[in-house]
Amino acid sequence: MYHIDFEHYFSKASNSFSPDVDELSQMADGADTVFICNPDNPTGALMIRDKIEYLLKKHHTTVFIIDESYLPFVENAEDISLVSETGYENLIVLSSMSKIYRIPGLRTGFLSADPKIVEKMMAYYQPWSVNALAQAVIQHIFDHSEEIAPFFRKTRTYVKAERQRFKERLEGVKGIELFDSSACFILARLQEGLTSGEFCRKIGQHRILIRDCSNFLGLSDQYVRFSLKKQETNDLLSTLIRQVMEND
Amino acid sequence: MYHIDFEHYFSKASNSFSPDVDELSQMADGADTVFICNPDNPTGALMIRDKIEYLLKKHHTTVFIIDESYLPFVENAEDISLVSETGYENLIVLSSMSKIYRIPGLRTGFLSADPKIVEKMMAYYQPWSVNALAQAVIQHIFDHSEEIAPFFRKTRTYVKAERQRFKERLEGVKGIELFDSSACFILARLQEGLTSGEFCRKIGQHRILIRDCSNFLGLSDQYVRFSLKKQETNDLLSTLIRQVMEND
Repeated sequence: MYHIDFEHYFSKASNSFSPDVDELSQMADGADTVFICNPDNPTGALMIRDKIEYLLKKHHTTVFIIDESYLPFVENAEDISLVSETGYENLIVLSSMSKIYRIPGLRTGFLSADPKIVEKMMAYYQPWSVNALAQAVIQHIFDHSEEIAPFFRKTRTYVKAERQRFKERLEGVKGIELFDSSACFILARLQEGLTSGEFCRKIGQHRILIRDCSNFLGLSDQYVRFSLKKQETNDLLSTLIRQVMEND
Repeated sequence: MYHIDFEHYFSKASNSFSPDVDELSQMADGADTVFICNPDNPTGALMIRDKIEYLLKKHHTTVFIIDESYLPFVENAEDISLVSETGYENLIVLSSMSKIYRIPGLRTGFLSADPKIVEKMMAYYQPWSVNALAQAVIQHIFDHSEEIAPFFRKTRTYVKAERQRFKERLEGVKGIELFDSSACFILARLQEGLTSGEFCRKIGQHRILIRDCSNFLGLSDQYVRFSLKKQETNDLLSTLIRQVMEND
Protein backbone atom coordinates (compact mmCIF):
# COMPACT_ATOMS: atom_id res chain seq x y z
CA MET A 1 0.00 0.00 0.00
CA TYR A 2 2.92 2.31 -0.85
CA HIS A 3 3.75 3.42 2.70
CA ILE A 4 0.24 4.60 3.51
CA ASP A 5 -1.18 3.60 6.89
CA PHE A 6 -4.25 1.44 6.67
CA GLU A 7 -6.27 -1.00 8.73
CA HIS A 8 -8.68 -3.82 7.99
CA TYR A 9 -12.20 -4.21 9.27
CA PHE A 10 -13.03 -7.81 10.07
CA SER A 11 -16.63 -8.95 9.91
CA LYS A 12 -17.52 -11.97 12.02
CA ALA A 13 -18.17 -15.57 10.99
CA SER A 14 -20.79 -15.70 13.75
CA ASN A 15 -22.70 -13.03 11.85
CA SER A 16 -22.28 -14.69 8.41
CA PHE A 17 -19.55 -12.09 7.75
CA SER A 18 -22.15 -9.37 7.43
CA PRO A 19 -20.34 -6.11 8.28
CA ASP A 20 -21.56 -4.08 11.26
CA VAL A 21 -22.26 -0.60 9.97
CA ASP A 22 -21.66 1.10 13.33
CA GLU A 23 -18.25 -0.50 13.67
CA LEU A 24 -17.44 0.49 10.10
CA SER A 25 -18.60 4.03 10.76
CA GLN A 26 -16.37 4.28 13.82
CA MET A 27 -13.36 3.18 11.75
CA ALA A 28 -14.27 5.58 8.94
CA ASP A 29 -13.95 8.50 11.38
CA GLY A 30 -10.86 10.42 10.28
CA ALA A 31 -10.03 7.98 7.50
CA ASP A 32 -9.11 9.40 4.13
CA THR A 33 -10.53 6.46 2.18
CA VAL A 34 -12.68 3.41 2.95
CA PHE A 35 -12.69 0.48 0.54
CA ILE A 36 -15.72 -1.84 0.54
CA CYS A 37 -16.14 -4.83 -1.74
CA ASN A 38 -19.88 -5.38 -2.21
CA PRO A 39 -20.70 -8.22 -2.26
CA ASP A 40 -17.51 -9.10 -0.50
CA ASN A 41 -14.95 -11.57 -1.84
CA PRO A 42 -14.47 -14.28 -0.56
CA THR A 43 -17.36 -14.15 1.92
CA GLY A 44 -20.12 -13.26 -0.53
CA ALA A 45 -21.64 -11.01 2.16
CA LEU A 46 -23.78 -8.19 0.80
CA MET A 47 -24.25 -4.70 2.22
CA ILE A 48 -27.60 -3.14 1.44
CA ARG A 49 -27.63 0.28 -0.17
CA ASP A 50 -29.07 2.04 2.88
CA LYS A 51 -26.07 1.09 5.00
CA ILE A 52 -23.60 2.42 2.44
CA GLU A 53 -25.59 5.62 1.98
CA TYR A 54 -25.65 6.07 5.75
CA LEU A 55 -21.81 5.97 5.71
CA LEU A 56 -21.57 8.27 2.68
CA LYS A 57 -23.74 10.89 4.38
CA LYS A 58 -22.15 10.59 7.80
CA HIS A 59 -18.54 10.89 6.59
CA HIS A 60 -18.43 13.71 4.04
CA THR A 61 -14.65 14.03 4.03
CA THR A 62 -13.99 10.32 3.64
CA VAL A 63 -13.97 8.86 0.12
CA PHE A 64 -15.74 5.50 -0.13
CA ILE A 65 -14.58 3.16 -2.87
CA ILE A 66 -17.27 0.55 -3.48
CA ASP A 67 -16.12 -2.37 -5.59
CA GLU A 68 -19.26 -3.73 -7.27
CA SER A 69 -17.47 -6.33 -9.42
CA TYR A 70 -19.70 -9.15 -8.20
CA LEU A 71 -22.88 -7.14 -7.72
CA PRO A 72 -24.40 -7.92 -11.16
CA PHE A 73 -24.75 -11.53 -9.96
CA VAL A 74 -27.08 -10.42 -7.14
CA GLU A 75 -30.79 -10.71 -7.84
CA ASN A 76 -31.83 -7.14 -7.06
CA ALA A 77 -28.49 -5.60 -8.09
CA GLU A 78 -30.13 -2.47 -9.59
CA ASP A 79 -31.61 -1.57 -6.19
CA ILE A 80 -28.23 -1.88 -4.49
CA SER A 81 -25.78 -0.53 -7.09
CA LEU A 82 -24.43 2.99 -6.65
CA VAL A 83 -22.92 3.05 -10.13
CA SER A 84 -25.18 5.72 -11.54
CA GLU A 85 -25.53 7.57 -8.24
CA THR A 86 -24.48 11.18 -8.76
CA GLY A 87 -25.49 12.61 -5.40
CA TYR A 88 -22.24 11.96 -3.53
CA GLU A 89 -18.93 13.74 -3.99
CA ASN A 90 -17.20 11.17 -1.77
CA LEU A 91 -18.18 8.08 -3.74
CA ILE A 92 -16.16 5.99 -6.19
CA VAL A 93 -17.75 2.88 -7.69
CA LEU A 94 -15.59 0.25 -9.36
CA SER A 95 -17.15 -2.15 -11.88
CA SER A 96 -15.35 -5.09 -13.36
CA MET A 97 -16.53 -6.34 -16.72
CA SER A 98 -14.55 -9.57 -16.31
CA LYS A 99 -17.08 -11.26 -14.09
CA ILE A 100 -20.68 -10.88 -15.22
CA TYR A 101 -19.76 -10.45 -18.91
CA ARG A 102 -17.24 -13.30 -18.73
CA ILE A 103 -14.51 -11.37 -20.55
CA PRO A 104 -11.59 -11.51 -18.09
CA GLY A 105 -9.00 -11.71 -20.89
CA LEU A 106 -9.88 -8.26 -22.19
CA ARG A 107 -8.75 -6.66 -18.91
CA THR A 108 -11.42 -4.07 -18.77
CA GLY A 109 -13.71 -2.38 -16.29
CA PHE A 110 -14.82 1.08 -15.31
CA LEU A 111 -14.93 3.61 -12.53
CA SER A 112 -17.81 5.91 -11.77
CA ALA A 113 -17.40 8.95 -9.54
CA ASP A 114 -18.02 12.66 -9.18
CA PRO A 115 -16.26 14.62 -11.98
CA LYS A 116 -14.01 16.30 -9.36
CA ILE A 117 -12.63 12.93 -8.30
CA VAL A 118 -12.26 11.68 -11.87
CA GLU A 119 -10.34 14.83 -12.83
CA LYS A 120 -7.87 14.30 -9.99
CA MET A 121 -7.33 10.68 -10.99
CA MET A 122 -6.78 11.50 -14.66
CA ALA A 123 -3.53 13.27 -13.71
CA TYR A 124 -2.07 9.89 -12.73
CA TYR A 125 -3.66 7.95 -15.54
CA GLN A 126 -1.75 6.04 -18.18
CA PRO A 127 -2.56 7.26 -21.66
CA TRP A 128 -4.13 4.65 -23.98
CA SER A 129 -4.84 2.34 -21.08
CA VAL A 130 -7.66 0.48 -22.80
CA ASN A 131 -6.85 -1.84 -25.69
CA ALA A 132 -8.80 -1.38 -28.92
CA LEU A 133 -10.52 -4.77 -28.79
CA ALA A 134 -11.75 -4.21 -25.23
CA GLN A 135 -12.98 -0.77 -26.23
CA ALA A 136 -14.93 -2.24 -29.15
CA VAL A 137 -16.53 -4.78 -26.80
CA ILE A 138 -17.45 -2.10 -24.25
CA GLN A 139 -19.02 0.00 -26.99
CA HIS A 140 -20.98 -3.01 -28.21
CA ILE A 141 -22.19 -3.85 -24.70
CA PHE A 142 -23.38 -0.32 -23.96
CA ASP A 143 -25.06 -0.09 -27.36
CA HIS A 144 -26.96 -3.31 -26.69
CA SER A 145 -27.87 -3.07 -23.01
CA GLU A 146 -31.48 -3.99 -23.78
CA GLU A 147 -30.49 -7.20 -25.56
CA ILE A 148 -28.01 -8.06 -22.81
CA ALA A 149 -30.50 -7.59 -19.95
CA PRO A 150 -32.06 -11.07 -20.36
CA PHE A 151 -28.57 -12.62 -20.15
CA PHE A 152 -28.11 -10.86 -16.81
CA ARG A 153 -31.47 -12.07 -15.52
CA LYS A 154 -30.78 -15.62 -16.68
CA THR A 155 -27.35 -15.57 -15.00
CA ARG A 156 -28.82 -14.29 -11.74
CA THR A 157 -31.61 -16.82 -11.66
CA TYR A 158 -29.15 -19.59 -12.47
CA VAL A 159 -26.60 -18.52 -9.83
CA LYS A 160 -29.27 -18.23 -7.14
CA ALA A 161 -30.76 -21.65 -7.91
CA GLU A 162 -27.35 -23.34 -8.15
CA ARG A 163 -26.23 -21.80 -4.85
CA GLN A 164 -29.37 -23.22 -3.24
CA ARG A 165 -29.00 -26.63 -4.87
CA PHE A 166 -25.30 -26.85 -3.97
CA LYS A 167 -26.06 -26.10 -0.32
CA GLU A 168 -28.88 -28.63 -0.23
CA ARG A 169 -26.67 -31.34 -1.68
CA LEU A 170 -24.21 -30.76 1.16
CA GLU A 171 -26.80 -30.72 3.92
CA GLY A 172 -26.03 -33.12 6.73
CA VAL A 173 -22.38 -33.42 5.74
CA LYS A 174 -20.39 -33.14 8.94
CA GLY A 175 -17.25 -31.06 9.32
CA ILE A 176 -18.01 -28.37 6.77
CA GLU A 177 -20.10 -25.23 7.22
CA LEU A 178 -21.28 -23.20 4.21
CA PHE A 179 -21.93 -19.49 4.69
CA ASP A 180 -24.72 -17.51 3.11
CA SER A 181 -23.58 -15.82 -0.08
CA SER A 182 -25.18 -13.47 -2.56
CA ALA A 183 -22.45 -13.99 -5.15
CA CYS A 184 -21.36 -16.74 -7.54
CA PHE A 185 -19.06 -18.26 -4.94
CA ILE A 186 -19.57 -19.74 -1.47
CA LEU A 187 -17.24 -19.53 1.52
CA ALA A 188 -16.97 -22.62 3.71
CA ARG A 189 -15.34 -23.39 7.04
CA LEU A 190 -13.81 -26.80 7.65
CA GLN A 191 -13.74 -28.62 10.97
CA GLU A 192 -10.59 -28.51 13.07
CA GLY A 193 -8.22 -31.25 11.99
CA LEU A 194 -8.72 -30.84 8.27
CA THR A 195 -6.79 -27.92 6.77
CA SER A 196 -7.74 -25.99 3.64
CA GLY A 197 -4.47 -27.04 2.01
CA GLU A 198 -5.19 -30.72 2.56
CA PHE A 199 -8.81 -30.31 1.48
CA CYS A 200 -7.90 -28.44 -1.72
CA ARG A 201 -5.26 -31.05 -2.54
CA LYS A 202 -7.81 -33.86 -2.17
CA ILE A 203 -10.39 -32.13 -4.37
CA GLY A 204 -7.59 -31.11 -6.75
CA GLN A 205 -6.77 -34.76 -7.41
CA HIS A 206 -10.04 -34.82 -9.36
CA ARG A 207 -8.87 -31.81 -11.38
CA ILE A 208 -11.19 -29.35 -9.67
CA LEU A 209 -9.41 -26.27 -8.37
CA ILE A 210 -10.95 -24.59 -5.35
CA ARG A 211 -9.71 -21.52 -3.53
CA ASP A 212 -7.66 -22.07 -0.42
CA CYS A 213 -8.61 -19.03 1.69
CA SER A 214 -5.83 -19.35 4.26
CA ASN A 215 -4.02 -16.32 2.85
CA PHE A 216 -7.02 -14.00 3.28
CA LEU A 217 -6.36 -11.71 6.23
CA GLY A 218 -8.94 -12.46 8.92
CA LEU A 219 -9.56 -16.02 7.73
CA SER A 220 -7.41 -19.08 8.45
CA ASP A 221 -6.47 -22.47 7.05
CA GLN A 222 -9.99 -23.63 7.94
CA TYR A 223 -11.53 -21.70 5.04
CA VAL A 224 -12.09 -22.53 1.38
CA ARG A 225 -14.17 -20.91 -1.36
CA PHE A 226 -16.20 -22.72 -4.01
CA SER A 227 -17.04 -21.01 -7.31
CA LEU A 228 -20.22 -22.16 -8.99
CA LYS A 229 -19.83 -23.45 -12.54
CA LYS A 230 -21.99 -25.62 -14.79
CA GLN A 231 -24.62 -27.74 -13.03
CA GLU A 232 -22.79 -31.01 -13.68
CA THR A 233 -19.50 -29.55 -12.41
CA ASN A 234 -21.22 -28.28 -9.27
CA ASP A 235 -22.77 -31.70 -8.73
CA LEU A 236 -19.43 -33.41 -9.20
CA LEU A 237 -17.85 -30.96 -6.74
CA SER A 238 -20.53 -31.49 -4.07
CA THR A 239 -20.19 -35.26 -4.46
CA LEU A 240 -16.42 -34.99 -4.05
CA ILE A 241 -16.78 -32.76 -0.99
CA ARG A 242 -19.14 -35.29 0.59
CA GLN A 243 -16.67 -38.11 -0.14
CA VAL A 244 -13.70 -36.21 1.29
CA MET A 245 -15.61 -35.24 4.44
CA GLU A 246 -17.14 -38.68 5.05
CA ASN A 247 -13.87 -40.55 4.59
CA ASP A 248 -12.01 -38.31 7.02
CA MET B 1 7.30 12.83 -12.53
CA TYR B 2 5.87 12.23 -9.06
CA HIS B 3 7.95 14.82 -7.17
CA ILE B 4 11.28 13.42 -8.35
CA ASP B 5 13.91 15.93 -9.50
CA PHE B 6 14.88 15.54 -13.11
CA GLU B 7 16.44 17.50 -15.95
CA HIS B 8 16.39 17.31 -19.72
CA TYR B 9 19.34 17.05 -22.04
CA PHE B 10 18.86 19.10 -25.19
CA SER B 11 20.65 18.05 -28.35
CA LYS B 12 21.27 20.78 -30.91
CA ALA B 13 19.52 21.47 -34.21
CA SER B 14 22.91 22.60 -35.56
CA ASN B 15 24.14 19.06 -35.01
CA SER B 16 21.01 17.39 -36.51
CA PHE B 17 19.92 16.71 -32.92
CA SER B 18 22.59 14.07 -32.51
CA PRO B 19 23.31 13.88 -28.76
CA ASP B 20 26.82 14.71 -27.54
CA VAL B 21 27.97 11.72 -25.51
CA ASP B 22 30.36 13.74 -23.33
CA GLU B 23 27.65 16.19 -22.37
CA LEU B 24 25.31 13.25 -21.62
CA SER B 25 28.00 11.58 -19.54
CA GLN B 26 28.52 14.73 -17.51
CA MET B 27 24.79 14.90 -16.75
CA ALA B 28 24.67 11.19 -15.91
CA ASP B 29 27.21 11.78 -13.12
CA GLY B 30 25.31 11.28 -9.88
CA ALA B 31 21.99 10.65 -11.64
CA ASP B 32 19.91 7.73 -10.48
CA THR B 33 18.39 7.07 -13.91
CA VAL B 34 18.99 8.27 -17.47
CA PHE B 35 16.27 7.83 -20.08
CA ILE B 36 17.30 7.71 -23.75
CA CYS B 37 14.89 7.25 -26.64
CA ASN B 38 16.86 5.61 -29.48
CA PRO B 39 16.15 6.61 -32.15
CA ASP B 40 14.76 9.72 -30.57
CA ASN B 41 11.19 10.92 -31.03
CA PRO B 42 10.49 13.44 -32.63
CA THR B 43 13.99 14.12 -33.96
CA GLY B 44 14.70 10.66 -35.41
CA ALA B 45 18.32 11.02 -34.23
CA LEU B 46 20.09 7.73 -33.61
CA MET B 47 22.78 6.94 -31.04
CA ILE B 48 25.17 4.18 -32.06
CA ARG B 49 25.65 1.26 -29.71
CA ASP B 50 29.24 2.19 -28.82
CA LYS B 51 28.13 5.49 -27.35
CA ILE B 52 25.49 3.90 -25.15
CA GLU B 53 27.87 1.15 -24.03
CA TYR B 54 30.43 3.84 -23.16
CA LEU B 55 27.83 5.43 -20.85
CA LEU B 56 26.78 2.05 -19.38
CA LYS B 57 30.38 1.22 -18.50
CA LYS B 58 31.32 4.65 -17.22
CA HIS B 59 28.28 5.04 -14.90
CA HIS B 60 27.85 1.76 -13.06
CA THR B 61 25.50 3.14 -10.44
CA THR B 62 23.21 4.91 -12.92
CA VAL B 63 20.42 2.92 -14.53
CA PHE B 64 20.00 3.63 -18.25
CA ILE B 65 16.55 3.13 -19.72
CA ILE B 66 16.85 2.81 -23.49
CA ASP B 67 13.53 3.08 -25.32
CA GLU B 68 14.01 1.16 -28.58
CA SER B 69 10.40 1.50 -29.75
CA TYR B 70 11.44 2.90 -33.13
CA LEU B 71 14.69 0.98 -33.50
CA PRO B 72 13.24 -1.91 -35.56
CA PHE B 73 12.68 0.63 -38.38
CA VAL B 74 16.43 1.31 -38.57
CA GLU B 75 18.34 -0.59 -41.23
CA ASN B 76 21.03 -2.15 -39.02
CA ALA B 77 18.84 -2.34 -35.90
CA GLU B 78 20.32 -5.67 -34.77
CA ASP B 79 23.78 -4.09 -34.50
CA ILE B 80 22.44 -1.25 -32.36
CA SER B 81 19.81 -2.92 -30.19
CA LEU B 82 20.68 -3.74 -26.59
CA VAL B 83 17.54 -5.82 -26.10
CA SER B 84 19.29 -9.16 -25.70
CA GLU B 85 22.36 -7.65 -24.03
CA THR B 86 22.86 -9.37 -20.67
CA GLY B 87 26.23 -7.88 -19.74
CA TYR B 88 24.94 -4.80 -17.90
CA GLU B 89 23.22 -4.66 -14.53
CA ASN B 90 22.36 -0.98 -15.08
CA LEU B 91 20.48 -1.41 -18.36
CA ILE B 92 16.73 -1.47 -19.04
CA VAL B 93 15.54 -1.77 -22.63
CA LEU B 94 11.96 -0.89 -23.55
CA SER B 95 10.43 -2.30 -26.71
CA SER B 96 7.07 -1.27 -28.06
CA MET B 97 5.26 -3.75 -30.25
CA SER B 98 2.84 -1.06 -31.42
CA LYS B 99 5.17 0.45 -33.97
CA ILE B 100 7.02 -2.08 -36.10
CA TYR B 101 4.31 -4.76 -35.73
CA ARG B 102 1.53 -2.22 -36.33
CA ILE B 103 -0.59 -3.44 -33.41
CA PRO B 104 -1.04 -0.26 -31.31
CA GLY B 105 -4.57 -1.27 -30.27
CA LEU B 106 -3.36 -4.30 -28.38
CA ARG B 107 -1.40 -2.10 -25.95
CA THR B 108 1.56 -4.35 -25.63
CA GLY B 109 5.32 -4.20 -25.40
CA PHE B 110 8.12 -5.56 -23.29
CA LEU B 111 11.00 -4.69 -21.03
CA SER B 112 14.34 -6.41 -20.97
CA ALA B 113 16.75 -5.99 -18.06
CA ASP B 114 18.94 -7.77 -15.56
CA PRO B 115 16.87 -10.17 -13.38
CA LYS B 116 17.72 -8.05 -10.30
CA ILE B 117 16.02 -5.02 -11.85
CA VAL B 118 13.03 -7.01 -13.10
CA GLU B 119 12.51 -8.52 -9.64
CA LYS B 120 12.41 -5.06 -8.06
CA MET B 121 9.89 -3.84 -10.64
CA MET B 122 7.61 -6.85 -10.21
CA ALA B 123 6.81 -5.65 -6.68
CA TYR B 124 5.00 -2.66 -8.18
CA TYR B 125 3.49 -4.55 -11.08
CA GLN B 126 -0.22 -4.83 -11.73
CA PRO B 127 -1.36 -8.44 -11.83
CA TRP B 128 -2.89 -9.57 -15.14
CA SER B 129 -1.56 -6.53 -16.93
CA VAL B 130 -1.55 -8.12 -20.38
CA ASN B 131 -4.85 -8.86 -22.05
CA ALA B 132 -5.38 -12.37 -23.41
CA LEU B 133 -5.57 -11.32 -27.07
CA ALA B 134 -2.32 -9.38 -26.88
CA GLN B 135 -0.69 -12.33 -25.16
CA ALA B 136 -1.83 -14.65 -27.95
CA VAL B 137 -0.38 -12.27 -30.55
CA ILE B 138 2.95 -11.99 -28.69
CA GLN B 139 3.18 -15.77 -28.49
CA HIS B 140 2.44 -16.04 -32.19
CA ILE B 141 5.07 -13.44 -33.08
CA PHE B 142 7.80 -15.06 -31.00
CA ASP B 143 6.92 -18.48 -32.38
CA HIS B 144 7.22 -17.18 -35.94
CA SER B 145 10.21 -14.82 -35.78
CA GLU B 146 11.76 -16.46 -38.85
CA GLU B 147 8.66 -15.86 -40.96
CA ILE B 148 8.35 -12.31 -39.66
CA ALA B 149 11.98 -11.35 -40.43
CA PRO B 150 11.28 -10.63 -44.15
CA PHE B 151 8.45 -8.26 -43.10
CA PHE B 152 10.97 -6.34 -40.98
CA ARG B 153 13.47 -6.15 -43.81
CA LYS B 154 10.81 -5.03 -46.27
CA THR B 155 9.58 -2.35 -43.84
CA ARG B 156 13.12 -1.06 -43.29
CA THR B 157 13.95 -0.91 -46.96
CA TYR B 158 10.64 0.82 -47.65
CA VAL B 159 11.02 3.39 -44.85
CA LYS B 160 14.58 4.23 -45.90
CA ALA B 161 13.62 4.68 -49.56
CA GLU B 162 10.50 6.73 -48.76
CA ARG B 163 12.46 8.99 -46.38
CA GLN B 164 14.94 9.64 -49.19
CA ARG B 165 12.21 10.20 -51.81
CA PHE B 166 10.23 12.49 -49.51
CA LYS B 167 13.30 14.64 -48.89
CA GLU B 168 14.16 14.78 -52.58
CA ARG B 169 10.63 15.87 -53.46
CA LEU B 170 11.00 18.80 -51.07
CA GLU B 171 14.44 19.87 -52.27
CA GLY B 172 14.62 23.51 -53.21
CA VAL B 173 11.45 24.37 -51.24
CA LYS B 174 12.23 27.52 -49.30
CA GLY B 175 11.28 28.08 -45.67
CA ILE B 176 11.35 24.51 -44.50
CA GLU B 177 14.35 22.48 -43.37
CA LEU B 178 14.15 18.69 -42.99
CA PHE B 179 16.46 17.00 -40.50
CA ASP B 180 18.19 13.66 -40.98
CA SER B 181 16.18 10.84 -39.44
CA SER B 182 16.72 7.13 -39.01
CA ALA B 183 13.08 6.49 -38.09
CA CYS B 184 9.72 6.41 -39.87
CA PHE B 185 9.16 10.11 -39.20
CA ILE B 186 10.99 13.30 -40.12
CA LEU B 187 11.38 16.44 -38.05
CA ALA B 188 11.20 19.76 -39.91
CA ARG B 189 11.87 23.38 -38.99
CA LEU B 190 9.77 26.12 -40.53
CA GLN B 191 11.00 29.60 -41.39
CA GLU B 192 10.25 32.45 -39.01
CA GLY B 193 6.84 33.92 -39.78
CA LEU B 194 5.05 30.62 -40.30
CA THR B 195 4.09 28.82 -37.09
CA SER B 196 3.62 25.09 -36.68
CA GLY B 197 -0.02 25.67 -35.66
CA GLU B 198 -0.76 27.58 -38.86
CA PHE B 199 1.15 25.08 -40.97
CA CYS B 200 -0.64 22.06 -39.43
CA ARG B 201 -4.00 23.75 -39.92
CA LYS B 202 -3.30 24.38 -43.61
CA ILE B 203 -2.19 20.78 -44.22
CA GLY B 204 -5.06 19.56 -42.04
CA GLN B 205 -7.59 21.16 -44.43
CA HIS B 206 -6.63 18.36 -46.80
CA ARG B 207 -7.35 15.80 -44.08
CA ILE B 208 -3.71 15.02 -43.39
CA LEU B 209 -2.77 15.26 -39.74
CA ILE B 210 0.81 16.16 -38.99
CA ARG B 211 2.43 16.55 -35.58
CA ASP B 212 2.75 20.09 -34.24
CA CYS B 213 5.97 19.87 -32.20
CA SER B 214 5.57 23.15 -30.32
CA ASN B 215 4.79 21.29 -27.09
CA PHE B 216 8.04 19.29 -27.15
CA LEU B 217 10.40 20.73 -24.55
CA GLY B 218 13.45 22.12 -26.35
CA LEU B 219 11.60 22.68 -29.62
CA SER B 220 9.32 25.60 -30.49
CA ASP B 221 6.38 26.54 -32.70
CA GLN B 222 8.77 26.36 -35.66
CA TYR B 223 8.84 22.56 -35.59
CA VAL B 224 6.58 19.89 -37.13
CA ARG B 225 6.99 16.16 -37.60
CA PHE B 226 5.92 14.15 -40.66
CA SER B 227 5.18 10.42 -40.37
CA LEU B 228 5.77 8.38 -43.48
CA LYS B 229 2.78 6.43 -44.78
CA LYS B 230 1.90 4.86 -48.11
CA GLN B 231 3.83 6.20 -51.12
CA GLU B 232 0.81 8.00 -52.56
CA THR B 233 0.04 9.62 -49.19
CA ASN B 234 3.65 10.73 -48.81
CA ASP B 235 3.54 12.19 -52.33
CA LEU B 236 0.31 14.02 -51.62
CA LEU B 237 1.83 15.39 -48.40
CA SER B 238 5.01 16.60 -50.08
CA THR B 239 2.93 18.26 -52.80
CA LEU B 240 0.79 20.00 -50.16
CA ILE B 241 3.87 21.14 -48.24
CA ARG B 242 5.33 22.63 -51.41
CA GLN B 243 2.03 24.42 -52.12
CA VAL B 244 1.76 25.81 -48.59
CA MET B 245 5.37 27.02 -48.60
CA GLU B 246 5.29 28.54 -52.07
CA ASN B 247 2.03 30.41 -51.52
CA ASP B 248 3.23 31.91 -48.25
